[in-house]
Amino acid sequence: MNKHIAILGISCTKFGELWNQSLTDLIAQAQFQALDDAQLLLKDLNALFVGNMCGELFSGQSHLGALATDILGVNIPGTRIEAACASGGMALSCAINSILSGQSDVVMVTGVEKMTDVDPAYAATALMGASSFDHEHMSGATFPALFALVTRLYEKRYGLLPEDRAQVSVQNHINGLTNPNAHIHKKIIINDVLKSPTVASPLTLLDCSPMSDGAACIILSSQDFAQKHKRDGIAIVGHASATDTLALGQRESLTEFKATQLASQCAYKQAGITPDMLDIVELHDAFSTAQIIALEDLALCPRGHAGKSSTRQIINPSGGLKSRGHPVGATGVVQVVELVRQLRNNAGPYQVHNARIGLAHNMGGVGTTVTVYIIRSL
Amino acid sequence: MNKHIAILGISCTKFGELWNQSLTDLIAQAQFQALDDAQLLLKDLNALFVGNMCGELFSGQSHLGALATDILGVNIPGTRIEAACASGGMALSCAINSILSGQSDVVMVTGVEKMTDVDPAYAATALMGASSFDHEHMSGATFPALFALVTRLYEKRYGLLPEDRAQVSVQNHINGLTNPNAHIHKKIIINDVLKSPTVASPLTLLDCSPMSDGAACIILSSQDFAQKHKRDGIAIVGHASATDTLALGQRESLTEFKATQLASQCAYKQAGITPDMLDIVELHDAFSTAQIIALEDLALCPRGHAGKSSTRQIINPSGGLKSRGHPVGATGVVQVVELVRQLRNNAGPYQVHNARIGLAHNMGGVGTTVTVYIIRSL
Repeated sequence: MNKHIAILGISCTKFGELWNQSLTDLIAQAQFQALDDAQLLLKDLNALFVGNMCGELFSGQSHLGALATDILGVNIPGTRIEAACASGGMALSCAINSILSGQSDVVMVTGVEKMTDVDPAYAATALMGASSFDHEHMSGATFPALFALVTRLYEKRYGLLPEDRAQVSVQNHINGLTNPNAHIHKKIIINDVLKSPTVASPLTLLDCSPMSDGAACIILSSQDFAQKHKRDGIAIVGHASATDTLALGQRESLTEFKATQLASQCAYKQAGITPDMLDIVELHDAFSTAQIIALEDLALCPRGHAGKSSTRQIINPSGGLKSRGHPVGATGVVQVVELVRQLRNNAGPYQVHNARIGLAHNMGGVGTTVTVYIIRSL
Repeated sequence: MNKHIAILGISCTKFGELWNQSLTDLIAQAQFQALDDAQLLLKDLNALFVGNMCGELFSGQSHLGALATDILGVNIPGTRIEAACASGGMALSCAINSILSGQSDVVMVTGVEKMTDVDPAYAATALMGASSFDHEHMSGATFPALFALVTRLYEKRYGLLPEDRAQVSVQNHINGLTNPNAHIHKKIIINDVLKSPTVASPLTLLDCSPMSDGAACIILSSQDFAQKHKRDGIAIVGHASATDTLALGQRESLTEFKATQLASQCAYKQAGITPDMLDIVELHDAFSTAQIIALEDLALCPRGHAGKSSTRQIINPSGGLKSRGHPVGATGVVQVVELVRQLRNNAGPYQVHNARIGLAHNMGGVGTTVTVYIIRSL
């Protein structure tokens, strides 16, 4: 990537069980707040991208690109991107291409999911659409079950203890305590994780991120536009995505995710940085094991050590998916929103001292689609 | 748009009730045939975009971007685009941006829909996700019902006769007779249309396009890549998309579609042509009335006259949605495939003499999302 992409505006709604807000309400709230934050007018927008996984399944509503432009009352192109839990990250990628192609100066990216209006068992089945229907869904697997397989293998190969794994959730819950938008504000200890109900052995309830409602929004622009409006302080300086097989049975290894490795190596190179230069990371801890593997695939810990060692970087200062919540389509977008808050020195009680370079890691399926963004203050 | 986008390869499967082919089978067939047609290797591809509306609803499978890269056995970014019946057209738009941004040299775009494995009533309800859930779905409307409202109003305003409307279906069925991939090979006469069962008065069964299974695929590249490989014969020289409100109740007019007008005006300007310079048009005749309104919005007929007058351009030489079939996510892609066949002088029994410039018009919802592509021989 030759040119940086400026981030002009950010927003996110409260995450949680928001039974008084519809899918449309969440999109509207996030979009108008982001416009306010960016100090832009509707006429400044050239295109809009929406990251969403389950609109048709959970709310009877497809066509969310047009819904989102309709909410704003504009006729610009609106596109819905679906890449399972990486829908937000991939929407951001399409938005960046729209700017770099010269088609757009200013683009809005909205991530949204409304998950708690349906039966949780139905939702769990619907989310299996992210995996291979033929090979995994039809065998009766659920997402926690697939991550349980990965966890068992990782434990055996690297000697990970249940207590080490539990510590991931404990720390993310501590981080989320002071994030006002987080879904879950609850201090937990290692024994809480170990003693919580088993979802798919060895994973317990507190190893798993919750189903949440919520939306987040980002307004991006070309560097030219940002410089002209003196808003070029924070930029995306590296971005990449990669895919791997849907079915775990087709992989060479289940204790590392190739897509994260490919995407992060490419993003580091674009940004011209090494992993040790990062200050903060928002990564995809859909399950505690996912965080451990991500730390290794992102080259922040040596292979097999992420469960025991700590990193120089602050990981998931916002609370991560575990505590902040995981409205699927919103996750890839809110990760970048959280990094920008930190880089603006505007994260209030959860501000990380002197944060200048951050990385966002968003994952769909069990390591199937991965996006990586590197953001920095210029 | 400063640079053209070259079209290196095309393919499409048979359209129809393909009970022996799964969603995965259709994607695989289209993708490998397009690679053959383009004479490219897997390693030449930099990114992949999939247009699909209902994978999760009809096949339990989301995450089709990664499914499509998985089928090829590559780790490149794969993105699923959903914009109701304009999913294919919008996928093409994201693919073009990926090339113009400099992120990719060669990109694959696959459109696919597997519609006939589910109960038709369930499918009709699912397709209502393209409209406004709050305002239209909850009022009990179906898509034929919404187009029936538009038809009644158009009839009243412009004196359209049922016979004029029926002629649209008659001609599209004639065109499709010699297209080997078409879903429906059946000559019909005006009286057949008028006497077929009413779906939503005044629209009869033969005013409506069928539900089909099918896939289509296009391989695009930068002009630089195409010139280097001496494959720069056919290019996309204009492209644009626009949106309008989801709910019809919010529109200024129901007898014309603003999104088609905005997108086509922009595409004509980019291509540096006027509508009369077009030789062939593949347009979105989901309902007979939709074709009549599209002809006027594309400035091929004066307002109110498209039901009575004929055009210089050959409209839907492939049979259109009515006869070729309408596997929703594939439609926007196959329209371009059909134009390329004509421009290559390779359309066999349905070849249009001397076709040099073509337009593809893809629509999602009742005029809610519209994409327009202008393709020409260079």
